[in-house]
Amino acid sequence: MRIVMRPTATVREIARVAATIETMGCQAHIAREDKRTTIGAAGSPQQLDRDHLLALPGVQEILDTRMPFKLAGREFHAQPTTVRVGDLSIGGDALAVFAGPCAVESEDQMLATAQAVKSGGAHALRGGAFKPRTSPYSFQGLGREGLQILDRVRRATGLPVASEITHPEDVSAMVETVDILQIGARNMQNYALLQAVGRVQTPVLLKRGMMSTLEELLMSAEYILAQGNSQVILCERGIRTFETYTRNTLDISAVPLLKQLSHLPVIVDPSHGTGRRELVEPIALAAVAAGADGLLIEVHVDPDSALSDGHQSLTPARFEALMERLRPVADVVGRTM
Amino acid sequence: MRIVMRPTATVREIARVAATIETMGCQAHIAREDKRTTIGAAGSPQQLDRDHLLALPGVQEILDTRMPFKLAGREFHAQPTTVRVGDLSIGGDALAVFAGPCAVESEDQMLATAQAVKSGGAHALRGGAFKPRTSPYSFQGLGREGLQILDRVRRATGLPVASEITHPEDVSAMVETVDILQIGARNMQNYALLQAVGRVQTPVLLKRGMMSTLEELLMSAEYILAQGNSQVILCERGIRTFETYTRNTLDISAVPLLKQLSHLPVIVDPSHGTGRRELVEPIALAAVAAGADGLLIEVHVDPDSALSDGHQSLTPARFEALMERLRPVADVVGRTM
Amino acid sequence: MRIVMRPTATVREIARVAATIETMGCQAHIAREDKRTTIGAAGSPQQLDRDHLLALPGVQEILDTRMPFKLAGREFHAQPTTVRVGDLSIGGDALAVFAGPCAVESEDQMLATAQAVKSGGAHALRGGAFKPRTSPYSFQGLGREGLQILDRVRRATGLPVASEITHPEDVSAMVETVDILQIGARNMQNYALLQAVGRVQTPVLLKRGMMSTLEELLMSAEYILAQGNSQVILCERGIRTFETYTRNTLDISAVPLLKQLSHLPVIVDPSHGTGRRELVEPIALAAVAAGADGLLIEVHVDPDSALSDGHQSLTPARFEALMERLRPVADVVGRTM
Amino acid sequence: MRIVMRPTATVREIARVAATIETMGCQAHIAREDKRTTIGAAGSPQQLDRDHLLALPGVQEILDTRMPFKLAGREFHAQPTTVRVGDLSIGGDALAVFAGPCAVESEDQMLATAQAVKSGGAHALRGGAFKPRTSPYSFQGLGREGLQILDRVRRATGLPVASEITHPEDVSAMVETVDILQIGARNMQNYALLQAVGRVQTPVLLKRGMMSTLEELLMSAEYILAQGNSQVILCERGIRTFETYTRNTLDISAVPLLKQLSHLPVIVDPSHGTGRRELVEPIALAAVAAGADGLLIEVHVDPDSALSDGHQSLTPARFEALMERLRPVADVVGRTM
Repeated sequence: MRIVMRPTATVREIARVAATIETMGCQAHIAREDKRTTIGAAGSPQQLDRDHLLALPGVQEILDTRMPFKLAGREFHAQPTTVRVGDLSIGGDALAVFAGPCAVESEDQMLATAQAVKSGGAHALRGGAFKPRTSPYSFQGLGREGLQILDRVRRATGLPVASEITHPEDVSAMVETVDILQIGARNMQNYALLQAVGRVQTPVLLKRGMMSTLEELLMSAEYILAQGNSQVILCERGIRTFETYTRNTLDISAVPLLKQLSHLPVIVDPSHGTGRRELVEPIALAAVAAGADGLLIEVHVDPDSALSDGHQSLTPARFEALMERLRPVADVVGRTM
Repeated sequence: MRIVMRPTATVREIARVAATIETMGCQAHIAREDKRTTIGAAGSPQQLDRDHLLALPGVQEILDTRMPFKLAGREFHAQPTTVRVGDLSIGGDALAVFAGPCAVESEDQMLATAQAVKSGGAHALRGGAFKPRTSPYSFQGLGREGLQILDRVRRATGLPVASEITHPEDVSAMVETVDILQIGARNMQNYALLQAVGRVQTPVLLKRGMMSTLEELLMSAEYILAQGNSQVILCERGIRTFETYTRNTLDISAVPLLKQLSHLPVIVDPSHGTGRRELVEPIALAAVAAGADGLLIEVHVDPDSALSDGHQSLTPARFEALMERLRPVADVVGRTM
Repeated sequence: MRIVMRPTATVREIARVAATIETMGCQAHIAREDKRTTIGAAGSPQQLDRDHLLALPGVQEILDTRMPFKLAGREFHAQPTTVRVGDLSIGGDALAVFAGPCAVESEDQMLATAQAVKSGGAHALRGGAFKPRTSPYSFQGLGREGLQILDRVRRATGLPVASEITHPEDVSAMVETVDILQIGARNMQNYALLQAVGRVQTPVLLKRGMMSTLEELLMSAEYILAQGNSQVILCERGIRTFETYTRNTLDISAVPLLKQLSHLPVIVDPSHGTGRRELVEPIALAAVAAGADGLLIEVHVDPDSALSDGHQSLTPARFEALMERLRPVADVVGRTM
Repeated sequence: MRIVMRPTATVREIARVAATIETMGCQAHIAREDKRTTIGAAGSPQQLDRDHLLALPGVQEILDTRMPFKLAGREFHAQPTTVRVGDLSIGGDALAVFAGPCAVESEDQMLATAQAVKSGGAHALRGGAFKPRTSPYSFQGLGREGLQILDRVRRATGLPVASEITHPEDVSAMVETVDILQIGARNMQNYALLQAVGRVQTPVLLKRGMMSTLEELLMSAEYILAQGNSQVILCERGIRTFETYTRNTLDISAVPLLKQLSHLPVIVDPSHGTGRRELVEPIALAAVAAGADGLLIEVHVDPDSALSDGHQSLTPARFEALMERLRPVADVVGRTM
C-alpha cells in the first residue's frame, strides 16, 4: 500500500502519516519523487485502517499495491465455480473422485487400473507421465510416451484424465492428451508454469505447496485466473511440519477455510497428505465431512511393485470399499456421488 | 522390526522379503545367526504392512525390536480402553462430547452454560479454574473458587466435569471437585505433573503439546500409566505450523494413527485446533468421520463477553445445531450419541 | 485491550468502534455490563491505533489487558542487566562460558569434568541432577544425590554451578546446592515452576522452549521477574523445524533480537542447538560474533560412554581448543574472556 | 552405513561396535555372511563419528550404503570446489561478497548502487530483472530491459553480476548479460529450470527453498551437476518456521553442515534470512564466523523508496561499515577479503 501526499503536504503532515502507519504495525518508507512525496507501508498492509489514513491532513489518495484474491476471492465472485470436464462437474452437488496410480508405468498397468477404478466408482483417472522427484536418479516418469498411454486409456474407458505438467513448453502437447493439467506441490510457485497453463482453457488442478500458506495457494490460483483460465481446482495435500509419523500433515481446516475465502472447488489428496495406506480411508471420510468437493486417491493394481508411492496406494478392492463407505457420509453432508 | 524366516526359507524367499521391505520405504538388513535368517527393517518401521509381510512365503514371525509405548501401545493391550466417569464411557461405541467455556468466570455463567449444553446433548462439562496464560498479566482463572463453582455445578446438573490441573500440589483438591483432570498442551511434558496425576485413579485428559510429535504424546501418556493410573484420554488439539489463518493446524491424521498405535480413547478439540468459531462445526464432523471417540467444544452463553477464547466459542444454540449435524455422521461410522 | 464506552454512547458509536477494531485487524467483542458497554479487542491488539480509537465519539478510556515485556523489555529498563554469581558477571563485557556434562553421573565424572573445563577456561559448571526425558524408562538423573555431588564439586573447584530444576518443591533444596537454577526447554511454560523460582533470589537460566516464539520466551521471563527475581539469563537452544540433519534449528537471529527487545543477558547452547559434536565449534563462534553474552557447552570426559547426549558433547581437549578459537572472535566484537 | 569387521574380530569387539553405534543414536544390525561379520547402522547414519568407529578394535572398514549426493557430496570430491567468475573466486580463501538491490529499478539506481558497493568493498553485484512475487499484481521486475541495464552496469563498473532466472527459455539471453544465474528459493525444486541451467557453463547460485531440507538442497544441486555444469554455489537464506519476529529463520548450522557434506561453496543471505535491516550486520558476522564462503547483501541507494525489500536493505554507508566490521572476523577465521 502506498499513501500519496498532496504536493502541498508539510513535513509535519508527512511525519504524522508515517508515524500512524508504524503505530498500525507496518513499516513506513517515505519516498520523494519529483515534487511529490509518497509513503510506502510495508509489512502487513492489510492491518492498516485506510479510512483513518485517508482522513489525515495532507493525504491525497491511497494506492493498493496489493489486491489479494481479486479473481480467486469470494468477494468478487460469490457463487461457487463449477469446473466442467465433459460430463463431470467439480464443485457442484456431486463429489468428484479422481483415482489412479502415482505414475504411468505401462499401458497394461494404466488400462487395468482405469477399468478397476471406473468399476469402483471413480469419476476421473489420475496418473503422472512427468514425475518431479527430489533425486535426479529416481524414476522421472515415461514422459511423452506416458501421455500417449493416457490418451489411449481415456479413449478406451471414457474416463477424463488428470496429469501433472512440469514444463511450460509441454502445455500444447498435454492439452491434446489429458483433460486436466495438474500443478504439483513443488511447482505451486513456479510462476512461468502457472502463467503458461493460465493461457489455455483446460482445467487446472492446483496442489498446495508443502510449504505454502493458504494465502499463497490462492495467490498462485490468481496467477492462473489472471491469464484468463477460470477453470481452477484447489487441492489440499498436506503441509510439512515437525511430525514424522505421516509423510505430510494434512491440514483439514484448509477445506472449510478455502471454501469460505474462495469460490473455487476444493479437493483433498489423502494419499500424499498422509503417505500411509491405512490412513487414506479415515482421512477421505473426514475430508468429505469437512466439505471437500472431491478426492484424489492413489490406486495401483499391484501396490507392492509400484515404481513410486506404493506404500500409500490402495488396491482396487480397497478403493471400492472406500467408495462404499464414502457414500453415506456424502449423503449426510448433502452431497451425491 | 525384525522378520524371522523359517529355517527352510530359500534365498529367493529371503530376497523377496528384503525387496518388499525396501519397497515399503525401509532399509532391509539380512542377518544369519546359526541356521536362522532374520531380516531387520530400519527407518520407519511403522510404514510396513505387517500382514502383507507375514503372508510372504518363508516368513515365520515378526518381532518388534522397538517397543516405546509399553503401556500405552496396542501390542500389549489389543482391546481398546474405555474410560468410565460415572455413567459416561469414553472410548466405547458412544461418542463423548465435552462442552463448556474456556474459563470458569462465575457461578451464574457456569450454571447457565452447563444447563444449556446438557440440554443441547453434551455428556460432560469443561471449564478451567486454573488457566495457564502466556502473559502473567492475563486472567489466570478463578483458582480454588473456580473449583468450588465447578463442584456445585456438577451436583446441580449431574454432568461430570473436566478441568485443567497446572500444579502437582493441586491434585488432592482437584480430585474432590472435578471428575477428569485435564493436562494442557503447555504441560504435556511437565513430568512432575504427569507423575502426580498418575498416582491417583481419577481419569486424565491429556492434550497434545502444540509442537509435540505423536510419539512424545504417547510417551507422556506412558508417564501417567507407569504410575498406575490407567484412565487416560488422548486429545488432539492442533499443532503449531507456519500457517497463520488458523490458530493451530489440527492434525486430523492423528486420530486414526493414535487409535492404531494405542488402545487409549482419542478425542478432538476443534475449538483450539482451529481458533475460529466458523470452523468448529466442519472440523467436528471431520473428527467423528475420522474415528474420534469424542469432542471437546468451547461453548459460552455470551461468547462476545468471554474472558478468554470467545472468538472460538459457540453459542448454546449453535452447539445444539452442531450436535444435530453430528448425529447422522456418527451413525454412518457406527457410533451412537 | 478493552475499550470502555461512555454510558451515553449510542449504538451507532459502539458499532463504529467495533468496526474500526475489525478494520485494524482484530476481532471486536462487545460486552454489556450494568449500564456500561465495553468492547474487547482480540487477536493482535498491538496492531491497534490507540490514539485513533480514543478519538472516536463515545469512547471513554482504553484499558490494556496485555502489557508485553513490562519488566523484561528494553523500554522500561534501557540499561543491560548484569547477572552476578559470586565473582562471575553475565551480561557485562566478559563472555560467560558454562561447560559440563548433560547429566551428573558420578562424583568422579563431575569432579574430573569440572577440573578439566576449569583448566580449559570455563567460568561455570553445568550438569543435571534431574533430567526430564521423553520416555519414563530413560535415565532420569541422580536426583538429590546428584545435587550433593554438585555441591561438593563446586566447593572443590570454586566453579559456580548451574543445574536444571523440574519441580516447584525442589526450590529450597536446590538453592542450597547450586548457584543458578536452570529451567529447561520443556518447562518454559510451566508457570507454577516459573513462579516458584521467581520467589527466590538465585539467578535463573531460562531456556527457550523448542516450540516457543521469542515473545513467549520473554513472557516466561516476565513470570519470573514479576515475582521479584530480577536475575534472569535467557538461553537460545534451537527450535523445532522440519530439518532433520540437526537435532534442533539454532535460531541465531534470536541473539541480536533478544538483546534489542530485552535488557536481560542472552547466552547460546550450541550443543543442544545442533545435537552434533562437530557443529559446536562453528556455531559457538557464530553466536559470539552475533553478540551472545555467553555459551553453554556440553563437555564430557568420556563422551562415548555418556548416559545422555554423548554425541553432542566435546572432550575436554576439544573444549580447550574451542576456547582458544573463541578468544580472537570475542576480541573483534569487543568482548573479553 | 555398514561397518565391516575383520575376520578375526571377537564377539566382544563386535558387541562394542554395536553398542557404540547405538550410543551415537543409530540402530545396529549385526549380520554374519560367510566368515565375515558386518554391522549395519540405521536411522541417521550422518550422526555417526566415522573416525571414532574406524578406530575401534576389530573394525576393518566402513562402507556407505547410501550415497545420495553422488556429484555434490564430499566423498567423491574431497577438495573444495572453487567457482570462478573472471577474477573472482568463490570458495577459496577469500570471502566473496555480493551486494546490490533486490530488484533492478532503473539504470541510474543500478549504476549508483554498483559504484557505491564497489567502493564499499563488494566483489560482485546482485539485482533481479525477473522477480517471482507471491502476487501476480506485485512488481515483477523490468524483465529483458533489466538485463540490458545489468549488462551495461557490469561493463561500466567491472563488477560481475548475479541475477535470478525464472524461466528455462531465458537461459540463452541471460548467459549473455549476467555472470551468475541465480535460482530463487521458490524455484529450488523447479527441475525443468535446474536442468536448463545445468546445460550451460555459467555459474549458478542456488538458494535453499524456504521449506527445504539440506538433503533436498543438495539433491537440487545434483540436478544441475548431473547435466554437466559443475559451477554451483549453495546459498542459505532462511527457512520457514513458526517464529514471526523474523521473515525467515536463518539456519546457521547449515553453513558448517553443507561445507562438511559437500565440496561446493556456501554463502549466506542475511537480508532475506532475517528480513530486518538491523539484523543484517550481526548475522553477517555470525555467518563468516561459522565458515561461510561469502555473503549476499541487499543494498539500496535509497532503501525507503525501494520497490521491494527496502526494509531489509542497507544503505551504501551502512554496507561499508559492515564490510569494515567483517574484516577482523574474516581474519580470525583465516579468510581474506
